[in-house]
Amino acid sequence: MSRWTIEKLREYMNEAGVDGWMVNSSDYHDSEYPGDYFKQRSFLSGFTGSAGTLVVTVEEAGLWTDGRYFVQAAHQLEGSGITLYKMGQKDVPAIAEFLAEKLPENGCLGFDGRTVGQEYYLELKKTLEEKRIRFSLLEDLGDKVWEDRPALSCEKVWILDAEKYSGMTAAEKLAKVRESMKKAGATVHLLTSLDDIAWLFNIRGGDVECNPVALSYAAVTMSDAVLFVQEKALDSEVRQALEAQGITIQPYNAIYDYTASIGETEAVMLESSRVNCAIYARLPEQVKVINQVNPETVMKAVKNPVEQENIAKAHVKDGAAMVKFLYWLKQNIGKIPMTELSAAAYLDKKRSEQEGFLDLSFKTISAYGSNAAMCHYSATEETDTELKPEGFLLVDSGGQYMEGTTDITRTIVLGPLTEKQKFHYTLVLKGMIDLASARFIYGCTGAGMDILTRGPLWQYGLDYNHGTGHGVGYLLNVHEGPQRIHWNARGGAQTVIEPGMLTSDEPGIYLEGEYGIRTENLVVCKEADDNEYGRFLKFETVTLAPIDKEAIDISLMTPDEIGWLNQYHEKVYTVLSPYLEKEEADWLKEACSRI
Amino acid sequence: MSRWTIEKLREYMNEAGVDGWMVNSSDYHDSEYPGDYFKQRSFLSGFTGSAGTLVVTVEEAGLWTDGRYFVQAAHQLEGSGITLYKMGQKDVPAIAEFLAEKLPENGCLGFDGRTVGQEYYLELKKTLEEKRIRFSLLEDLGDKVWEDRPALSCEKVWILDAEKYSGMTAAEKLAKVRESMKKAGATVHLLTSLDDIAWLFNIRGGDVECNPVALSYAAVTMSDAVLFVQEKALDSEVRQALEAQGITIQPYNAIYDYTASIGETEAVMLESSRVNCAIYARLPEQVKVINQVNPETVMKAVKNPVEQENIAKAHVKDGAAMVKFLYWLKQNIGKIPMTELSAAAYLDKKRSEQEGFLDLSFKTISAYGSNAAMCHYSATEETDTELKPEGFLLVDSGGQYMEGTTDITRTIVLGPLTEKQKFHYTLVLKGMIDLASARFIYGCTGAGMDILTRGPLWQYGLDYNHGTGHGVGYLLNVHEGPQRIHWNARGGAQTVIEPGMLTSDEPGIYLEGEYGIRTENLVVCKEADDNEYGRFLKFETVTLAPIDKEAIDISLMTPDEIGWLNQYHEKVYTVLSPYLEKEEADWLKEACSRI
Repeated sequence: MSRWTIEKLREYMNEAGVDGWMVNSSDYHDSEYPGDYFKQRSFLSGFTGSAGTLVVTVEEAGLWTDGRYFVQAAHQLEGSGITLYKMGQKDVPAIAEFLAEKLPENGCLGFDGRTVGQEYYLELKKTLEEKRIRFSLLEDLGDKVWEDRPALSCEKVWILDAEKYSGMTAAEKLAKVRESMKKAGATVHLLTSLDDIAWLFNIRGGDVECNPVALSYAAVTMSDAVLFVQEKALDSEVRQALEAQGITIQPYNAIYDYTASIGETEAVMLESSRVNCAIYARLPEQVKVINQVNPETVMKAVKNPVEQENIAKAHVKDGAAMVKFLYWLKQNIGKIPMTELSAAAYLDKKRSEQEGFLDLSFKTISAYGSNAAMCHYSATEETDTELKPEGFLLVDSGGQYMEGTTDITRTIVLGPLTEKQKFHYTLVLKGMIDLASARFIYGCTGAGMDILTRGPLWQYGLDYNHGTGHGVGYLLNVHEGPQRIHWNARGGAQTVIEPGMLTSDEPGIYLEGEYGIRTENLVVCKEADDNEYGRFLKFETVTLAPIDKEAIDISLMTPDEIGWLNQYHEKVYTVLSPYLEKEEADWLKEACSRI
Repeated sequence: MSRWTIEKLREYMNEAGVDGWMVNSSDYHDSEYPGDYFKQRSFLSGFTGSAGTLVVTVEEAGLWTDGRYFVQAAHQLEGSGITLYKMGQKDVPAIAEFLAEKLPENGCLGFDGRTVGQEYYLELKKTLEEKRIRFSLLEDLGDKVWEDRPALSCEKVWILDAEKYSGMTAAEKLAKVRESMKKAGATVHLLTSLDDIAWLFNIRGGDVECNPVALSYAAVTMSDAVLFVQEKALDSEVRQALEAQGITIQPYNAIYDYTASIGETEAVMLESSRVNCAIYARLPEQVKVINQVNPETVMKAVKNPVEQENIAKAHVKDGAAMVKFLYWLKQNIGKIPMTELSAAAYLDKKRSEQEGFLDLSFKTISAYGSNAAMCHYSATEETDTELKPEGFLLVDSGGQYMEGTTDITRTIVLGPLTEKQKFHYTLVLKGMIDLASARFIYGCTGAGMDILTRGPLWQYGLDYNHGTGHGVGYLLNVHEGPQRIHWNARGGAQTVIEPGMLTSDEPGIYLEGEYGIRTENLVVCKEADDNEYGRFLKFETVTLAPIDKEAIDISLMTPDEIGWLNQYHEKVYTVLSPYLEKEEADWLKEACSRI
């Protein structure tokens, strides 16, 4: 199959006069979970993993993917004639290096510029400069090969009520964005990130899996706000509601002509690491570009009082679903057949029964035993593992509710544990608590706090290879910026933590071939104190679900940590018990009793 | 007096055609403690504080200083006709703002460019751009007024033995510097910071108070290394030793002509925030400037094995002196008359009796009771306070030994304490211990660690208004870069902590009108572990002196913190007791007993 598609692609490349073609599986908005319409790389290569890039030249074809997919890719590419390039391995060239070697002098590299970010394009351009490579960004050759390409998702757009849910009208948000534009000296603001657009216009949709966003672009000037969206996605009521707030509707793809027609004297604010290069390429050359983090990203990270109140409510619902799941799991383990997938399905069902539930916020991760040691493991029919009354089950899950987005991880004791398991579990818990209970001076960044979370592990030469915390949207993406908790002070980790920010707190430990542990709560930043020494902030934990005490080695915990856990559990029980059946509440009471 | 000097200065200004003159009290190397030769601002204005800038225009004269000196400056400027500008106060213009208002359009501002850093000059230039102000950098008008100006310090330069003390020869260091130059594409490297020069050439001197450095400049090319130094400071033996290592000697001031004669095709590496603007101004315009942190600063921060071994020895001597002082203080408080200054003198004497002692590393800070709440307090004859058998005495002190530089602060219990005093003392101690006992992954910066030290205070809405840690030289400046421990991720706080770095760990708390507490040890960074999770580092405390247990509220300490303190005290007693008199050792045993 893929031999045929690659040959077909080469025919179109020849017609178009390009010497190399690159295909990834991004959508036009750098979304985390691109829809089927965008799975061109899967179609062309046969490799179905979530991350990977296909490069085809006249003579060669290669696929680049990372460590999560080496085995799967090798299997799926077998017999395709496509070479697998294992990213990060020694002596494996990066894509740009490969192209710099293989493309002819003065040659042409092509790709659908809508799927490639402006900054990656600039990187490529720089590496290929020496060979004077030209670029073709504005065609989609893969589309010509892909005859039965699925339709572009076009779910109905709906309005999130400002008074009840979002806490601010679109008009109010636009006014704030225009203030930022003024401050930066911008006259036009182009916006392509779907969650920022959804936040700005108080709209929600269903075009990206688990992310309630609509495929769209936006442009804001001092007088106009244009939403570029598939017109079929808007019914007349929604259209009227948007127009009533001074928002103009244009077709989804009209952004490209709009961009090309921006006046030469305008100053355009955009975030070049999130804008695709096909949009950037259409900007008239004389236009002044003001490259900065989208003001919407910063504004939506700070949850307003209405949102914060709702988020607390969402977590009561989510917590009740979690407790029902935990109760069922603990009662039935070893008694009825269970697997990673069946357990996940039970949890998903409990969540879906909650009032105001709309969707999962991501595909539930349910990983048993050594599967959990693979940080990116996601159970499939093939890997689905039976749960036994021993060791740990790691469950990372969340929901989209009218009242907000949740994200919680619990590592659940299914039966006897070793001392080593308890030791590791307790260190992770200590880190989670030490961050959650921190007070800090205003101005601290995620990079300045991570040592609290990793510290207990670092003391023993242990660590985890992922971030400690990410921002979480309000009925939006479960992963959002700008803040990030990670000791390596790059990107979002340099963002100052502001009151109102909702962030995850999720340390872990992973022992290859043995087990994986992660404990995750969401915390919202609050004012703590403002006195002659400075302005102090703290975190308030919003996630409500018991933390499995059976795995705790109390001798490793400080009195403060024990105090935090007991207080937390008391709150979990008090708040959630009214929403539970008697036997569930009784079980929770014990699960939340003092250590 | 100062009315006359200002009028005289204005005459010279008139002759030179400048409309404004600025005088600070920096030397030509931005040293921390400039010598008497450089106290031009004191001479001209009558204000003798360590920090302050005098600005004289045709009509006005103003002196800018910071909060430490408001009272003193107001007093000393009385009747001088010079207006006091209190820096940082509301509605007080910055110097540049003042000049932008007062200087005439197309006017000329002058100052001795040797005393003004290139970056501050650029800032001034930018602010004064609108008024098209010209600059005169190459004259020293104040010198003409100051008829009995003290001579430039010219202490003898001596060589620090490489095998025994510095661990590397000058030739070896030069080779490493040249590697850095190659990497940066530099062909010439100009060096003006005295401690970097002393490190590079393995020379020491006595031209800056408490800093064993020599007034000098240096230039390094791929073939030559030139030391610009007062020729009278070199005896023939030292000169020969330097020349034997391929070092050329030129007169101190020849650096300015040298700089002017650098070939136009050369690429000059320098650190523009440390080079004075008179040097920078002499660089031929076509020369390419590579502005980066001096490679010497980074190299000398990482102490080599010989240095580390010596540093341990220096701290045994310093610790013995400290214990002798503490014993005397504790035995005699309330029995014999004592003041801040007499106590400091006793300590200085004990230090000076140690073998290999050369000097104090800074003027001993001895601050009793509420005096210690003033962070920059330094006792004088006028403020000298009697010590009573109650409350705290804060002593921050250090020495210069052949085996290294020390810096230690102890807050000593002289008598009954309140619960609040114990509470604050214990929080500070916890922070000091939490940093000292940290293990962390390679790549962490001082900004990423500060929350460990400040965290115990922040939990209670408390903080201190100074850095947590600075680098310490080897028989060099007690304050050196590049590393710095401070949550605000600017400058040195973004430097990765490397194995071999020697850093202070000195949290504190200051209650205005009540008391001040600080506890400071020096720690050296060491390898801790290198495994599948990463490369881990730790700190090893090198300072040896008991921490006053009488002020500790044990109920606030974690078991790990108590464990650290007991282990530390055990080491202090074991290592120091052989160097003490019996009664001192007996006292130390008790002072170091377990809590």
